[in-house]
Amino acid sequence: MSASDISTAAIIGTGTIGASWASLFLAKDLTVRCHDPSADAEKQTRAFVERAWSALGQLGAVPPLEQAQARLSFHTTAEAAVEGADFVQENTPETLEIKRRVLAEIEAGLDPDALIASSTSGLMPSAMQEAMTRPDRFLVGHPFNPPHLLPLVEVVGGRLTSEQSITRAMAFYTRMGKRAIHIRKEINGHVANRLQAALWREAVYLAAEGVASVADIDAAVASGPGLRWALMGPHLTLHLAGGEGGMAHFVDHLGPAFSAWWDELGAPSLDAGTRALLVAGVDEAVGGQTVDALAARRDEALITLLRSIKTLS
Amino acid sequence: MSASDISTAAIIGTGTIGASWASLFLAKDLTVRCHDPSADAEKQTRAFVERAWSALGQLGAVPPLEQAQARLSFHTTAEAAVEGADFVQENTPETLEIKRRVLAEIEAGLDPDALIASSTSGLMPSAMQEAMTRPDRFLVGHPFNPPHLLPLVEVVGGRLTSEQSITRAMAFYTRMGKRAIHIRKEINGHVANRLQAALWREAVYLAAEGVASVADIDAAVASGPGLRWALMGPHLTLHLAGGEGGMAHFVDHLGPAFSAWWDELGAPSLDAGTRALLVAGVDEAVGGQTVDALAARRDEALITLLRSIKTLS
Repeated sequence: MSASDISTAAIIGTGTIGASWASLFLAKDLTVRCHDPSADAEKQTRAFVERAWSALGQLGAVPPLEQAQARLSFHTTAEAAVEGADFVQENTPETLEIKRRVLAEIEAGLDPDALIASSTSGLMPSAMQEAMTRPDRFLVGHPFNPPHLLPLVEVVGGRLTSEQSITRAMAFYTRMGKRAIHIRKEINGHVANRLQAALWREAVYLAAEGVASVADIDAAVASGPGLRWALMGPHLTLHLAGGEGGMAHFVDHLGPAFSAWWDELGAPSLDAGTRALLVAGVDEAVGGQTVDALAARRDEALITLLRSIKTLS
Repeated sequence: MSASDISTAAIIGTGTIGASWASLFLAKDLTVRCHDPSADAEKQTRAFVERAWSALGQLGAVPPLEQAQARLSFHTTAEAAVEGADFVQENTPETLEIKRRVLAEIEAGLDPDALIASSTSGLMPSAMQEAMTRPDRFLVGHPFNPPHLLPLVEVVGGRLTSEQSITRAMAFYTRMGKRAIHIRKEINGHVANRLQAALWREAVYLAAEGVASVADIDAAVASGPGLRWALMGPHLTLHLAGGEGGMAHFVDHLGPAFSAWWDELGAPSLDAGTRALLVAGVDEAVGGQTVDALAARRDEALITLLRSIKTLS
């Protein structure tokens, strides 16, 4: 079975991440079968899909909402939900014990050739797949929140994952409009969260040292390098900074300056004082705007941005 | 004299950075007086302004190009160029010896109340201003390349810089459409380059460890967190990741995960093997596109992006 044969997906766990995946899959014409233990999961998910629909419509053609909702169903167990599914996206709480139990329930009802992907950001696929009957078809497909808007998905196989499963999952996510990247080694934080952690560490250090305000440090990103990082990653950015000689010229001529900065980067700790300073700094920066209001503006801006730019390579 | 009185700027050093500053200042109706020792500096700068004009026009109203070029003049010495200027932007080579000599030449011809800003990315204002007659009106105004497109400018005072000069410079840059941030302590790399270095360090580490390809690491930024960083900085991003509880909730609940990643971040070196790997990785990613072609596409995309988004706080 190839990725293009996948027409039915199961979503196990329909919190924010699961409901967002469900919205995306429905927009891409899949049948979506869900399970979540929470009593109002179906109501919440259908409301999420409705809210997400206008965003999805702005990013591409979507089928009518009513027709999409008709392709969405909820089931009382994970085993029942995965019946007939070609692909499972698991989004349950981040503990190994829960994940392993859920994976066993999934395997009990699932077609043997169907793929199982976990949205986990913190657990390693090798640890999760150990007790599975068919561990070869299990992998991590870690999205960036919200999955129906942000293109990135990190695909990570475990020790027992087959190469064919990785290839099929990459092709499936690509068909769903995602930018799938292959993480070749299991590592804490995969790639994107490690990069995010690296940037934030220095940001926290500079705030804690009083080099600039929290708002000004944020502006240093959003009005400077952050504008480039929406278009291309750090390597390509510095390749262009190298001029005609590209990355080779950059490493030869500016590598020493960057190496010197690397040696001086800070190692802050998130102690009570730093926590208070960050909270006060953000409060000052947002000037009374609620998180909900900011998040709504951010998502609106993200849609505009995604519509207007074409990512370079 | 306040920032709104500044109507004539001098540009000392008209390489890529100086010519870009000149274009911006001309677009904002200033008279711009330049000096550069290179024989074809005037020709190159006028050509740069002409190329920059369409970009500047897309970002805001600009006067007719011919009228702007008439406000641009070149002079045979720095001393002559700064005559009658209210503000000097210095962009000469990054060595303390050259900068100090140029600053002496500037002071010899400059009105005593005019401000002098240096575009330096690598030198400290305290070291540069030591021998000046009026060090209180000297500061660093470090742009992100190209200054006529990227809003960020980092304002850094030295030991002898007056608070009034900082305030005036911040107000002037703001009037020029820049997002000026105040760096309160002299530190290598100021803020934005340190943040860029922090991100790239982990990117290089992950490439060197074979965790993912150079292209996939870049995509992990540009298809994920990079899209957010064009809209808001790292602190505000994580404030929103904290949900209703904001940054306080984030630090309490996700702080431990980030701290654990911090402890594991890599410390690569830019040795010959890593250099070769990065060069090969970028070559593969760009697939034959020249740096010039990529830079042109990047700048075009930057303009679209700047037009379409409103930076959140």
